[in-house]
Amino acid sequence: MNVTVARIYVTEGKHVYEKIFKRLHDEHRVNGVTVFRGISGFGRSGETHSSELLDISFDLPVVIEFFDTDEKVQAVVDTLDDIIPQCHVITFSAQLT
Amino acid sequence: MNVTVARIYVTEGKHVYEKIFKRLHDEHRVNGVTVFRGISGFGRSGETHSSELLDISFDLPVVIEFFDTDEKVQAVVDTLDDIIPQCHVITFSAQLT
Amino acid sequence: MNVTVARIYVTEGKHVYEKIFKRLHDEHRVNGVTVFRGISGFGRSGETHSSELLDISFDLPVVIEFFDTDEKVQAVVDTLDDIIPQCHVITFSAQLT
Repeated sequence: MNVTVARIYVTEGKHVYEKIFKRLHDEHRVNGVTVFRGISGFGRSGETHSSELLDISFDLPVVIEFFDTDEKVQAVVDTLDDIIPQCHVITFSAQLT
Repeated sequence: MNVTVARIYVTEGKHVYEKIFKRLHDEHRVNGVTVFRGISGFGRSGETHSSELLDISFDLPVVIEFFDTDEKVQAVVDTLDDIIPQCHVITFSAQLT
Repeated sequence: MNVTVARIYVTEGKHVYEKIFKRLHDEHRVNGVTVFRGISGFGRSGETHSSELLDISFDLPVVIEFFDTDEKVQAVVDTLDDIIPQCHVITFSAQLT
């Protein structure tokens, strides 16, 4: 079965990931979600978020991954555009076994 | 070189991931495996597994990722169908450098 | 927008990932990077790196992920070939939203 995988890149601060997670769970009821915390990262600003830098170790990178039918994933990503910063979501095709 | 990447989504409970890891290592001898623990997630049941929920923090999401030739990955995924719940494996094509 | 995603698989030892991260940040100025630490893994040698094995728990798997235009990613991966072991980078296409 063809599916589309989405990976949303945010950081831990401001409870953004919890809000996205809640909406994926409560409203969109996607098939499943997995959230990963990175140990280090940076975005377009170039500012590094790292578990080794104490002052911003509370704001580590977080990736929210889920997959579903292509239509569902595109619809979900569209409705999340009020909360996800632009250029912070990638989607790609995969086979579900 | 074309490869196929597999990502297997399970949780930590019941030692499922250790069993899959052991078979990938001992029997199938795939090129390499990386296992990631998520900090939060849910599957089709909708039950949330989160490091913030103490009662099920022992059962966090785990993703087992590996890549190899397409033939090898398909064969391995087929032989693991006794241990991996249905619809818990995605595969996609990539280039190995 | 089409992007190419790269995932580089190394381990924590010898500060390889910090060197790659620094070059991605300082020299190549890619759009963003996220680094994930795995809890377990093995490579072609078959030697297992696991957080449960105390003697090598300081050398856990690390994945460095980034995405950018295809041209940029290919150029970056080429220039990192002095530091990344062969067959430790995968790239694949995705859509950036």
